[in-house]
Amino acid sequence: MTRAWAVGLDMGGTNIRCAAVSVAGDVLLIEHGPSLTSRQAGAVAENIAAQTIHVLATARRRGLGSPRAIGVAVPGPLNVYTGTVMQAPHVAAWRGYPLRNRLEALIGRKVVVENDANAWALGEYWRGAARGRCDVVLLTLGTGVGGGLIVVGKLVHGRSGMAGELGHVTVNPNGPRCDCGSYGCLESYASASGLRGLIEDRLGLPPSTPLPPQMLDSEKNFSVRALSAQARRGDKLALEAFATAGHYLGIAIASFINTFNPELVVLGGGVAAALPYMRKTMTAQVRARAFTAMAAQAKIVRAALGPRGGVVGAAYAALHPPTRS
Amino acid sequence: MTRAWAVGLDMGGTNIRCAAVSVAGDVLLIEHGPSLTSRQAGAVAENIAAQTIHVLATARRRGLGSPRAIGVAVPGPLNVYTGTVMQAPHVAAWRGYPLRNRLEALIGRKVVVENDANAWALGEYWRGAARGRCDVVLLTLGTGVGGGLIVVGKLVHGRSGMAGELGHVTVNPNGPRCDCGSYGCLESYASASGLRGLIEDRLGLPPSTPLPPQMLDSEKNFSVRALSAQARRGDKLALEAFATAGHYLGIAIASFINTFNPELVVLGGGVAAALPYMRKTMTAQVRARAFTAMAAQAKIVRAALGPRGGVVGAAYAALHPPTRS
Repeated sequence: MTRAWAVGLDMGGTNIRCAAVSVAGDVLLIEHGPSLTSRQAGAVAENIAAQTIHVLATARRRGLGSPRAIGVAVPGPLNVYTGTVMQAPHVAAWRGYPLRNRLEALIGRKVVVENDANAWALGEYWRGAARGRCDVVLLTLGTGVGGGLIVVGKLVHGRSGMAGELGHVTVNPNGPRCDCGSYGCLESYASASGLRGLIEDRLGLPPSTPLPPQMLDSEKNFSVRALSAQARRGDKLALEAFATAGHYLGIAIASFINTFNPELVVLGGGVAAALPYMRKTMTAQVRARAFTAMAAQAKIVRAALGPRGGVVGAAYAALHPPTRS
Repeated sequence: MTRAWAVGLDMGGTNIRCAAVSVAGDVLLIEHGPSLTSRQAGAVAENIAAQTIHVLATARRRGLGSPRAIGVAVPGPLNVYTGTVMQAPHVAAWRGYPLRNRLEALIGRKVVVENDANAWALGEYWRGAARGRCDVVLLTLGTGVGGGLIVVGKLVHGRSGMAGELGHVTVNPNGPRCDCGSYGCLESYASASGLRGLIEDRLGLPPSTPLPPQMLDSEKNFSVRALSAQARRGDKLALEAFATAGHYLGIAIASFINTFNPELVVLGGGVAAALPYMRKTMTAQVRARAFTAMAAQAKIVRAALGPRGGVVGAAYAALHPPTRS
């Protein structure tokens, strides 16, 4: 007997994860490959298609047969109805790029595309921290900040599927410039790039000056994990940076609570792993700014699925494709 | 033949409007009465019940028969499922007050309670500016700022029906103290009380010092209408206050656009009538802060129903009562 399943693919800044996910949400097989985001628009899509085709072949070889559906999660706001990526932080060449059409032509099957943070929200809703919860706000605190909103058990897509850019709500109108072009977005604080900026600012370093070596990984890149290790050792600069990130994260969460009256706020991504160093300032702002009755109902928890959230959610999106009202 | 209809009642700070609204959304009859918000919790409810019963009697006398449902809209966050008002800006005595149960006992019929801004959003969706639109953000810019969110044609209620407190998102973390206890809420700027505060601040007046007479109405109260007249005459102080309100309104709208990808942002209430004096700064912030692709899809328009929005929407809420997922 063949188990019914779907492909879930999640393209990150450096890696692609591609999985066969059963209709019950179990990962049956998962493969990893490079993301090749710096290439031309078409080459990035060809790489996604090649890794999908590879998983299709592996699945067939293992007796899983054909999938019911194929879901692909990518960064950046995209129109889920037309399958067009408006802009993607790591793929400069994707501006109004018809990703779904291109993937369908390359793979020879229907494809559903979804924003990566939205996919993660669906994954947490299906099999993670938000299982059985109907009104959920998910924030992915990674290199940038993404978001996914679930209202009465459905992802909020908005007019064209670009809703949920929760990293780009203003938390400080006079704050630092954000990659999106605005100022003082949540992403300017509670992301890896935001933390890096806070430290540069604190040290008075001009951008792209090397940071202190204890904040870098083995490849000399700024590392939230290294910064967390510093905070664990009691380093004042690291603790202050996390406290500031937590402060603005709390301001944003308070606004989301007053807006959505969620039962759960789920925090995922590398920066969420540093929650112990952000929780005090975050909680203080939520208490000061959210309506008490709503704040009392909104638990703030870590995501449960980790890096598999995206593939599980992409498969869910494929199995429950968005329908325009 | 009797037309099918519902009662829609809207309690404001000073007046109650109570109407018979047909199932097609036409106002068949409407009556006005005082709001009596300063009384004891029970007396405020008795006043609502009395005015409802009065409209029921008038409708019967005019041959309309009995209503299908009764909807009551009141200010403040409330739990639509239990019918409990958590807190109401004009009724100090309503804190965790079981309004629906009390009204049902007094009227002898089932009642649906809804937040007033939510009701207005439903009214605009049913018969006003948002007719035929599925993803809508409504802001009521009055004494305070209320909000209503419509996603795929349904009001967003959240866990317990308190969602949509859009006046209490933070637009400036270091801004003035808001009546809700937070700082720098949208309501601290783009409401009558916010404008009053901006002017006091600009003039260096301590709170409750009398304002210049040209900003007051005939009863010596601060009046947005009088301030608009001043702006029309080119008064610098009035123009600056509206420009600042518009600036922060634009910051909030940009965040709502990035969050919801709405097709329409509807502005209602007395302060929205001064939109000509706020539009320039508002638009500048929306352009600077919202994703271009989403901003292009989100028209910003005035509400169409005016003071009848609440009663029409309360009737809609009664005819389509919220169901918990």
